[in-house]
Amino acid sequence: MSFNTFGRVFRFTTWGESHGPALGAVVDGCPPGIALTEADIQPWLDRRRPGTSRFTTQRREPDAVRILSGTFEGRTTGTPISLMIENTDQRSKDYSDVALAYRPGHADYAYDAKYGFRDYRGGGRSSARETAARVAAGAVARLVVPQVRVRAWVEAIGGDAIDPAAFDDAQIDANPFFCPDAAAAARWEETVDAARLAGSSLGAVIACEATGVPAGWGAPLYAKLDSELAAAAMSINAVKGVEIGDGFAAAALSGERNADAMRPGNDGPVFLANHAGGIAGGIATGQPIRLRVAFKPTSSILTPVDTITREGAATQIMTKGRHDPCVGIRGVPVVEAMVALVLADQALLHRAQCGLI
Amino acid sequence: MSFNTFGRVFRFTTWGESHGPALGAVVDGCPPGIALTEADIQPWLDRRRPGTSRFTTQRREPDAVRILSGTFEGRTTGTPISLMIENTDQRSKDYSDVALAYRPGHADYAYDAKYGFRDYRGGGRSSARETAARVAAGAVARLVVPQVRVRAWVEAIGGDAIDPAAFDDAQIDANPFFCPDAAAAARWEETVDAARLAGSSLGAVIACEATGVPAGWGAPLYAKLDSELAAAAMSINAVKGVEIGDGFAAAALSGERNADAMRPGNDGPVFLANHAGGIAGGIATGQPIRLRVAFKPTSSILTPVDTITREGAATQIMTKGRHDPCVGIRGVPVVEAMVALVLADQALLHRAQCGLI
Amino acid sequence: MSFNTFGRVFRFTTWGESHGPALGAVVDGCPPGIALTEADIQPWLDRRRPGTSRFTTQRREPDAVRILSGTFEGRTTGTPISLMIENTDQRSKDYSDVALAYRPGHADYAYDAKYGFRDYRGGGRSSARETAARVAAGAVARLVVPQVRVRAWVEAIGGDAIDPAAFDDAQIDANPFFCPDAAAAARWEETVDAARLAGSSLGAVIACEATGVPAGWGAPLYAKLDSELAAAAMSINAVKGVEIGDGFAAAALSGERNADAMRPGNDGPVFLANHAGGIAGGIATGQPIRLRVAFKPTSSILTPVDTITREGAATQIMTKGRHDPCVGIRGVPVVEAMVALVLADQALLHRAQCGLI
Amino acid sequence: MSFNTFGRVFRFTTWGESHGPALGAVVDGCPPGIALTEADIQPWLDRRRPGTSRFTTQRREPDAVRILSGTFEGRTTGTPISLMIENTDQRSKDYSDVALAYRPGHADYAYDAKYGFRDYRGGGRSSARETAARVAAGAVARLVVPQVRVRAWVEAIGGDAIDPAAFDDAQIDANPFFCPDAAAAARWEETVDAARLAGSSLGAVIACEATGVPAGWGAPLYAKLDSELAAAAMSINAVKGVEIGDGFAAAALSGERNADAMRPGNDGPVFLANHAGGIAGGIATGQPIRLRVAFKPTSSILTPVDTITREGAATQIMTKGRHDPCVGIRGVPVVEAMVALVLADQALLHRAQCGLI
Repeated sequence: MSFNTFGRVFRFTTWGESHGPALGAVVDGCPPGIALTEADIQPWLDRRRPGTSRFTTQRREPDAVRILSGTFEGRTTGTPISLMIENTDQRSKDYSDVALAYRPGHADYAYDAKYGFRDYRGGGRSSARETAARVAAGAVARLVVPQVRVRAWVEAIGGDAIDPAAFDDAQIDANPFFCPDAAAAARWEETVDAARLAGSSLGAVIACEATGVPAGWGAPLYAKLDSELAAAAMSINAVKGVEIGDGFAAAALSGERNADAMRPGNDGPVFLANHAGGIAGGIATGQPIRLRVAFKPTSSILTPVDTITREGAATQIMTKGRHDPCVGIRGVPVVEAMVALVLADQALLHRAQCGLI
Repeated sequence: MSFNTFGRVFRFTTWGESHGPALGAVVDGCPPGIALTEADIQPWLDRRRPGTSRFTTQRREPDAVRILSGTFEGRTTGTPISLMIENTDQRSKDYSDVALAYRPGHADYAYDAKYGFRDYRGGGRSSARETAARVAAGAVARLVVPQVRVRAWVEAIGGDAIDPAAFDDAQIDANPFFCPDAAAAARWEETVDAARLAGSSLGAVIACEATGVPAGWGAPLYAKLDSELAAAAMSINAVKGVEIGDGFAAAALSGERNADAMRPGNDGPVFLANHAGGIAGGIATGQPIRLRVAFKPTSSILTPVDTITREGAATQIMTKGRHDPCVGIRGVPVVEAMVALVLADQALLHRAQCGLI
Repeated sequence: MSFNTFGRVFRFTTWGESHGPALGAVVDGCPPGIALTEADIQPWLDRRRPGTSRFTTQRREPDAVRILSGTFEGRTTGTPISLMIENTDQRSKDYSDVALAYRPGHADYAYDAKYGFRDYRGGGRSSARETAARVAAGAVARLVVPQVRVRAWVEAIGGDAIDPAAFDDAQIDANPFFCPDAAAAARWEETVDAARLAGSSLGAVIACEATGVPAGWGAPLYAKLDSELAAAAMSINAVKGVEIGDGFAAAALSGERNADAMRPGNDGPVFLANHAGGIAGGIATGQPIRLRVAFKPTSSILTPVDTITREGAATQIMTKGRHDPCVGIRGVPVVEAMVALVLADQALLHRAQCGLI
Repeated sequence: MSFNTFGRVFRFTTWGESHGPALGAVVDGCPPGIALTEADIQPWLDRRRPGTSRFTTQRREPDAVRILSGTFEGRTTGTPISLMIENTDQRSKDYSDVALAYRPGHADYAYDAKYGFRDYRGGGRSSARETAARVAAGAVARLVVPQVRVRAWVEAIGGDAIDPAAFDDAQIDANPFFCPDAAAAARWEETVDAARLAGSSLGAVIACEATGVPAGWGAPLYAKLDSELAAAAMSINAVKGVEIGDGFAAAALSGERNADAMRPGNDGPVFLANHAGGIAGGIATGQPIRLRVAFKPTSSILTPVDTITREGAATQIMTKGRHDPCVGIRGVPVVEAMVALVLADQALLHRAQCGLI
C-alpha cells in the first residue's frame, strides 16, 4: 500500500518524484483566517535548498513554491492548500546503471520487490527531494501554532559531537552545518570536505527542541505525542533512530536519577529536570519537547559495492552524480517541519476534545 | 483528543483502566477462516502476566482472556474480535496521596493538565496494565502472518548489557528476565533484587527481531514499515527511544561501513550485512527486521521526590504499592505484540495494493 | 475488509453477533468531565428493546448496558468508554435450515461469498441486534451535544403515510409505532397485525429532525454533514434510501420553488423555507436538520421463497423464528442514535478547525 | 474541519477553487503497473466539460489534465498520482453582489458561518467546478477495476421521467442530456431551453448501474458498500437524495414482493429480481449495483430572491453569470466517477482481507 498522507485533523499529502515535472503537498484541515502567502513558506524552503554550499548536493533547484489553492486575499480559507514546487534541474544523465542494478542502502531493491516496477531516475519517489514538500507544509503548520518555536540543529557528524557547553543558538544559521558550536563547525568543515572529496559519506545526529508547547497536547494511547513524533522522524529518508528526552541514556539510569521533580511556580509547576523530554504518558508537560534523530550516512558513495542486477546477476555499483556527502545536514529543516506538523495536528486535536463547543 | 485505535486495515482498539472492572481490545479487519480460540492467546498473556517472579509487580492477576465475538466454531469470521480480561486484584488501597499530588515521571500531571480530571487509581488509563490488551491483540496478529517469527529479549538492564557472543535463544524463556545470556541473567538477578529491596528501579533495553518478513511489506511514505514500528514502540509505556538496525550507531559510520552489499542467492539476493535492520525506503528487504527499544526506569520509587499538589503546593511523594522494579522486563512480550500487530497490518496493506484483484 | 468504526474524532467501534455471549461499543474521543452513568444510556436502549409490544420480535432481551471503562466518579475521563450488553435470550433453536440455504434478502449469501464462512445463528454479525450497540453509543453522543435535540418518528408503514397536519410530538412515544399521528397509529395497528399474522412483513419510512445545530457544523468536501448523515443512515440494517430536506421531491422543483429565502432576524438570518433540510454546501445553516430514511420490509417471512443451498442446489426457504414484522419501527431509536453520533463528531471537528487554540 | 480526502486504501484528495489558478486531485494507493496516460483520463473530463451545448454553463474550459507524478514510462508506479487541471476562463466579472450578500441555496451563508471568511468568486471551494477533479480521479479508478462497467444516465428532469421501456444505452451519449430515451430527450430540449431562457432552473434524477462487481465486495459494518455509495453520492454538489435498488419504493412493498429469490446458475446463483440493487448486508451480491441520485435545481436563478447581506441587512439577489440551467445533467459523469472510486477502494479492501497473503 501507499500512504502519502500524515496527520489526523491537520493533514498533509505529498506527491512527486525526484525527476518528475514537479512535486507538492496538499495541506488539509488548516484553520481559516491565517495570513499566508508564498513569502511565509519560501524562507524555510531556502534553508533546505540544495546547492547553497559545497557540503550539499550540487543540484541547482530554486525550489520556488506556488500556492495553488486554499487562500483568498492573503488568508487561509479553511479549504485545502495546494503547494507546488517545480523541478527545474532534472539533469538528463544516463541512469542505465541504476536502472539495471540495485544501489545498496537505497530503496531500489525494496521498491522493485514491492511494486515490480520503479522510477529509477534519481530514486524516484524514494528520493529525499520529497522532503521539500514537507518543509513547505511545515511552514504552514508553524502558522497554526505560532506560540510554539521549533528549532533543530546538528549535534554530531560522523561521530564527532558538539560541546554542549559551547551551544550558541546564533551560530546555528551562521555556518553551513546548522551547528550551534563554532569550534565543531570548523572541524566538520574539514571532515565533510574530506568525505566529499573521497566520494565517501557521513552520518549525523540532529537534535530538536520545541518550546511553547502547553501542557496537555497529546492524544493517548495511539496518537501519543511521542509516538507521533517518532513516526514523523522515522518517516524521513535515512533516519534510523529516534529518542525523546534522555532516550537510550534513560535506560541506564535509576529511577531516582531519572525523576523530573516539580516545585510550585507562578505559572504551573517548575520542573527541576527534563529527562522525559517534555512528554509524560504521551502528553506534553509544558516543558520543552526534546528529541534526537539519527541519520545514517548517505548511501550514494563512489566506492564500488557488491550488488545484483534486476536479473539477479552479481555486479558492482558506484553511485556517481550529485549527492549530499552528509544527508543529515539538510535533515535539520526537515526534522523541524515534521515536528511542527505533528504539533499543529495535536493542537487541533486537543482543542477538539478539551475545548468548549 | 483520544486515539485508542492502532492500524490501517488490521486495526485494534483498546479500552480499560488499571482499576476498572475489566480491560480489552477489539480487533477489526482480521481475515476470516483463521483457527482461533482463547488457547491461542492465553500463553502470550501468561508471558506478560505479573506476579510470576519476585522481579515483577506482586499484583496477582490471572489475566484470563475471553473471546466475546468474531469467531464461530473455532475460526475467525472476518468480523470484529472482542477480547476481554477482567481485573480481579484491584486492591482497595488508599490512593489519597496519589489523588492529591502528582507522581513525577508518571502521567499524573499531564493527564490532569489535559483532561482537567483523572482516574488516579493505579494510574488509570495511563497504567501499563493496558498493555495486556495489546498482547492479546498481538496474539491474533501472529496468526495473520504465520510465516513471521517475532522474538524479543532484554539486551541490557541498568546499563549492564548482554554479551552478544553468548546469545542463546533457548535461554530467553529460561529466566525471569527474557535474557538470552545466562551469565548476564545471573548478574541481573542481583542487580534487580538490590533495586527492588532499595525501593529503586532500573531501565532496560529490549531488542526485537522479526524473521520471515518478505521483501515488499511497507507502505511509503507515511506508513513506512520503520515509521509504523517506531510509532508502535514509542506508544508503549516508559519507552523513550527506538532504533532500526544500527540506529544511532549508524550515524557514526561512513557510507562504506554502513553499506549492506548484496550477492546473488538462490532465493533473491543474499545480503552481506544488515546495518539497515531489514528496511530500506520504508519497505522490507527480506532480511530480518531488527529494532531496539529503550525503557526508562519505573517512575514509582520509594525515595521521596519533590512534587506539587493539585492545588499547586509544594510536597513530596514516594510511591508505595506494587510495582515492577524494572518495567522493561515485562516490556518484552509487549514489544513483540506491537511488532506483530504492525506486520499483520502491513501484510494486508501490501496485499491490497500489490496482490491481484 | 471489515470496518466497524464510525466517526473522525468522536469515534465508536461496535462488536458482537446476534447469538454470541454479548455485544458492545467502544466510544473513543469523548470529551472529559461529562456526567455519565448507565442510567443515561438505559432509557434509550429501552426504547429500542425488543419484546415490548406484539409488533416487534418476541425475543426477550433486557439489554442492560454496563460501562466497563472511561468514567470515574460518574464523569467521563476522556479515555475510551467501553459499553457492553449481554445476550441472554439466544434461544437454542435449530438453525440447520439457515445453515444450509441462503435466506433471500438477508446477508447470508453475500457474507458467504465474501468470507467463505459465516456465523449463521440469527444472522450473526449482520443481525439488526448490532444496532443496540449503536443506540448505547448514541446516548453518549447526545451528552456531547446537549444543545441539540434529535427526534425521529415513523412517517409511513407499508405505503400508508401520516397526515402532516396531524403531527403531534407527544404522540410519538404514546404508541408502539413511534407515530406522531394518532389516527395513523390506529390504522397501522391493524395493518401490522395483519402482516404479522400472515407471516408477512412491511417497509417503513422514518423521518428525523435535529434542532439546535448551529450554523457551521459540517466538514466539506468529503465529510460534509449530509454525506456523513447519508453514510450513517445507509449503514443501518434494511435501509435503502436517504433524503436530506426535500430529497427526491426537490428534483422536480424549479429553482424558484426550491429557494430558501432569508430575512434578517435577531439571532442570525430567518429562513422563509427549509427545502434544503438545514444543510448547504455540506454545512449546517442553523435551520433544523431534516432527513428521511427508507426501510425495506423485513426479509424474514413465512412464505416459502426460492433459493439455493451452499452447495448450489435449488430449494425453498421460509424464515420461522422471532422477527419484527416491520423492522423500520425499531429503526426510530437507531436513526436518532446515528444522527446524534454524526453531530457529536461534527461538533468536535468544527471546534478543532474553527475554535481558538 | 475540512476533509478533502475520500477512500480507505484507494484514496483521493481534491483541491482547488472555482476561480483559482488550477484545481486537482492526488490519487494515493493505486496499484502499480497499470497503463495510464493523460489520454486515459481526458475523454471522461470531456464528457463533463462545460460549454459543449447550450444546456450547460457557457464557461469555456478545456479542462486539460496533466499527470504530474505517479507514473513512469506510461505505467503507474504505486506512488501518488497528482492530477492538475488549470483554470483558464475565470472571467474577471464583478463579484461585488455575491461578496456582499448570500445567495439562497448556495453555500455562501454556511461557509461564512463556518469559516468567518470565504472566497466568493464563483462559489470558491463550494463550486461544482471541483467535480472535474473527481472525474479525473474516477478515470484512474476505472482502470483499477477494469472488470466493472459503471454507467449513469439522466432519468428525469423537472419531474418528467423517461419511459423505462424505451431505454436505449446507445442514446445516452447521443444527446446533450445523457438521456437513454430519445423521446424524453426531445421533450427535455424544450423544457431545459425554456428554463434557461426564463433564467430559471430544473432538478434531475440520475440513475447509475455498475455491472461486473463480484459478490463479496463491501466492508461491513461502517464501510458497507451501500453506505460508501450513499456518502459518495451525497458529497456531490446539489445532491439531496440517494436510493439503492428500489429505495423508497421498497418501503411500500411487502416482504414477499421485495424478495430477490435465487435459483441455481452455472456461475453462482441466478437472481429472479434485484430489488436490493445488488447489495445485501452491505456486501455485493454479484447482481448489478443500482442507485438513483436526486439533484436539486441549480440555485442560481435570475428571479430576485430575498436574502441578507453579510452585515445582516435585508436585500434581494439574482444570480447573473454563467450557470447550468440543470446542474444534474453534468452530474452524470460525476456520479459515475464517484461510484468507480468507491468500487476501486472496495476492491482493494476486499483483497486485503479476503485474498491470500
